[in-house]
Amino acid sequence: MKKRSLLFAIICFALNVNASNPDSAVVSKIYDEILEKGKVYENLHYLCKNIGPRLSGSANAQKAVDWTKSLMETYGFDRVYLQEVMVPHWDRGVKETAYFKVNNKKQTVAVAALGGSVATIEKGIEAGIIEVYNFDQLKELGEAKIKGKIVFFNRPMNSKAIRTFNAYRDAVNQRSQGATEAAKYGAIGVIVRSMTTRVDEFPHTGSLHYDENVLKIPAVAIATKDANQLSEALKLQPSITFFMKLNCKTLPETLSYNVIGEIKGSEFPNQIITVGGHLDSWDLAEGAQDDGAGTMQSVEVLRTLKSLGVKPKHTIRTVLFMNEENGLRGGLKYAENAKQNGEQHLAAIESDSGGFTPRGFSVDASTAVVDKILSWKSIFDGFDLNEIGGGGGTGSDIGPLKPLGTALFGFRPDSQRYFDFHHAANDVFENVNERELKLGAAAMTALVYLIDQNGLN
Amino acid sequence: MKKRSLLFAIICFALNVNASNPDSAVVSKIYDEILEKGKVYENLHYLCKNIGPRLSGSANAQKAVDWTKSLMETYGFDRVYLQEVMVPHWDRGVKETAYFKVNNKKQTVAVAALGGSVATIEKGIEAGIIEVYNFDQLKELGEAKIKGKIVFFNRPMNSKAIRTFNAYRDAVNQRSQGATEAAKYGAIGVIVRSMTTRVDEFPHTGSLHYDENVLKIPAVAIATKDANQLSEALKLQPSITFFMKLNCKTLPETLSYNVIGEIKGSEFPNQIITVGGHLDSWDLAEGAQDDGAGTMQSVEVLRTLKSLGVKPKHTIRTVLFMNEENGLRGGLKYAENAKQNGEQHLAAIESDSGGFTPRGFSVDASTAVVDKILSWKSIFDGFDLNEIGGGGGTGSDIGPLKPLGTALFGFRPDSQRYFDFHHAANDVFENVNERELKLGAAAMTALVYLIDQNGLN
Repeated sequence: MKKRSLLFAIICFALNVNASNPDSAVVSKIYDEILEKGKVYENLHYLCKNIGPRLSGSANAQKAVDWTKSLMETYGFDRVYLQEVMVPHWDRGVKETAYFKVNNKKQTVAVAALGGSVATIEKGIEAGIIEVYNFDQLKELGEAKIKGKIVFFNRPMNSKAIRTFNAYRDAVNQRSQGATEAAKYGAIGVIVRSMTTRVDEFPHTGSLHYDENVLKIPAVAIATKDANQLSEALKLQPSITFFMKLNCKTLPETLSYNVIGEIKGSEFPNQIITVGGHLDSWDLAEGAQDDGAGTMQSVEVLRTLKSLGVKPKHTIRTVLFMNEENGLRGGLKYAENAKQNGEQHLAAIESDSGGFTPRGFSVDASTAVVDKILSWKSIFDGFDLNEIGGGGGTGSDIGPLKPLGTALFGFRPDSQRYFDFHHAANDVFENVNERELKLGAAAMTALVYLIDQNGLN
Repeated sequence: MKKRSLLFAIICFALNVNASNPDSAVVSKIYDEILEKGKVYENLHYLCKNIGPRLSGSANAQKAVDWTKSLMETYGFDRVYLQEVMVPHWDRGVKETAYFKVNNKKQTVAVAALGGSVATIEKGIEAGIIEVYNFDQLKELGEAKIKGKIVFFNRPMNSKAIRTFNAYRDAVNQRSQGATEAAKYGAIGVIVRSMTTRVDEFPHTGSLHYDENVLKIPAVAIATKDANQLSEALKLQPSITFFMKLNCKTLPETLSYNVIGEIKGSEFPNQIITVGGHLDSWDLAEGAQDDGAGTMQSVEVLRTLKSLGVKPKHTIRTVLFMNEENGLRGGLKYAENAKQNGEQHLAAIESDSGGFTPRGFSVDASTAVVDKILSWKSIFDGFDLNEIGGGGGTGSDIGPLKPLGTALFGFRPDSQRYFDFHHAANDVFENVNERELKLGAAAMTALVYLIDQNGLN
């Protein structure tokens, strides 16, 4: 080997540069930076412990807006700003109570009002229970059997699904539509089995959607353990009654914000690559996995690029969307503004499946874009990102960008533990693993970098 | 569509049969059985909570032998038996204590004697500290600076490694060889930074190996948080001293057992496919991930095949190896017996990397075997088993089968969380996820089934 090539080889080795693929070398640096000096874990700690639950319209949601704005300002991004958006403001009020009565003995159960539910009357409601698994059963039973009763939707999430989001998709209409469907037949309240495959003590809330033409009846999620007990009790004695008292209310819409930070593109400043998660969370916990993880990872993407001195060709924008959980107003407003302002969004990437160990990315784009992404497969493989493309959603907040021709990407972490915590009181910082969270941030940064450098054509 | 083909289509749909690939259909049934009716999680609960820590030679190790034998008997496997093996018997004794002294103030630190360590003298030892990162530094410092001191090995596991086992491999010589290397220069004791990338309060034990020609000196693992504090204190005041008192002893070797269950092959009863994990664990916790998970998954493989009525062509054997942690006597004895008895081991699969979400299998076999395994890639992909073949160890216990021509496979779960718990007091049942554990058992059963049906040629 000649002296010069030896020197080159030594330099390459020292810089950990893969000479045959400079992209690969930068991606390695991205991983090194985040795994060794990343801020995403400590930022998530702050969000969870110093702010906590942050449902749209709440004082905490405003605190989260203020803090993330100032956080991105301290990182010195080219521009940090707020985007106004009106959001629904639902409030749980005093914690709900519920029990069922067997032989006049009360058995308390763990419930949580579904987001958006109306309250019960002041003294609560009590009625007989009709257990069903689906809407067809409601139809079969009809008004004669349902009127005046509380309907108990008890179809479990399918534990046989390999990816838990598929099981969620197949069960969640009980939560989102159950109250409306049951009310059509005269039900006065609804109990929904929590959306998790675990059998535990946590009610998992989540939004419901009322049909404006149907009477709005109160609805709660019940912990799976209690759902099982209630179901057993009903088998022995179908005539038992259920009591629930909900104190929630819907307040006037509130002004809130998407929080946006960006680094200007050096070649194509008017072409934007957006990466984001949603800043709001349910009120029962810290929203650590849903979606504190995704928001802090999205901030980490910009921080890392800046920290490594990467000058992106395109404008890279971190967007912390407000109100994914019960309205999607942030995502809708962002796309609306993008359209009005004639912004060109090359790509949008969302992280809203938790901060678990990365598996890859789902892609919602043209075949040509998918092929382009797959051309980086050897780089992704080196970081155990094996699942590129294929099915699965990409993210609710970025969905409204699709009509603008934006290629959509969902960061896909392993899904096995997500519904252990989803929308429940145990979605706390302690249930996030530092390495997994950081690897997710690194995977997202890598994808943003590769798209920025190589485009999608 | 004709009536008959319609009927066939309906039947296929009902049975979830992929007509084009009957193997794929059975693999689906394997997953369904384990995810829906699996016993692996409740069996692991029993092992962890009703037996607990089970270091070789201990009364608990014997309880684990007795219980797993009776468990496999209740499942009605064709044959369940014990294989005698003499094992080392090391005992921690009264919990060790340690502190360092700054300006005569004691700062207690969390330590655990390394497995196999000698005790200190009765009143403990106290001496100055030499902090090093590697063995070269010992050589540079030499006897002049090391003699009479306690050597503190403080090289962290590399957090930048994507797969944590690589970081472990690169750091663990401090634990396994540190005491011998330090003793060569006259050190009187050794402190080793715990093998984890986390900064926490848990000392992580593990075995050390003394060179018989070098003085045996006592050695402890120190929690990473305390290692950092000690290192900081040394920077301010290099003259501080360290005290440690270890009460461990090595007792006479003890008779113990590998626990074996098998289903006889219908076509090739003399060709064996072995699947296993190790039954012993360190004494500090329940050995839930290491390796309760692997043993209970291995039992689940046989239970599932039997439960589904699969009649394997080859003999399928579950082996719960004794003494992986501090001697490997079970693995060695198993291979020795196999050789003596002229047993033909087609394949051996070990699960000893935790019960985390499955990523795939490492393979240590001929290229032809690797190609054969890769021919099932489309089946594996359907269950998110993307990492087939490639580097990484397969398992210590099955290693001794390699000279017999056995193809070796390591079940490869995601590695990110493994060293959070490895050999430490937090390796408890609560840190195992039910779905992840079950998916691992299903992946292993699938591999065993595919090898059994298709062979490896």
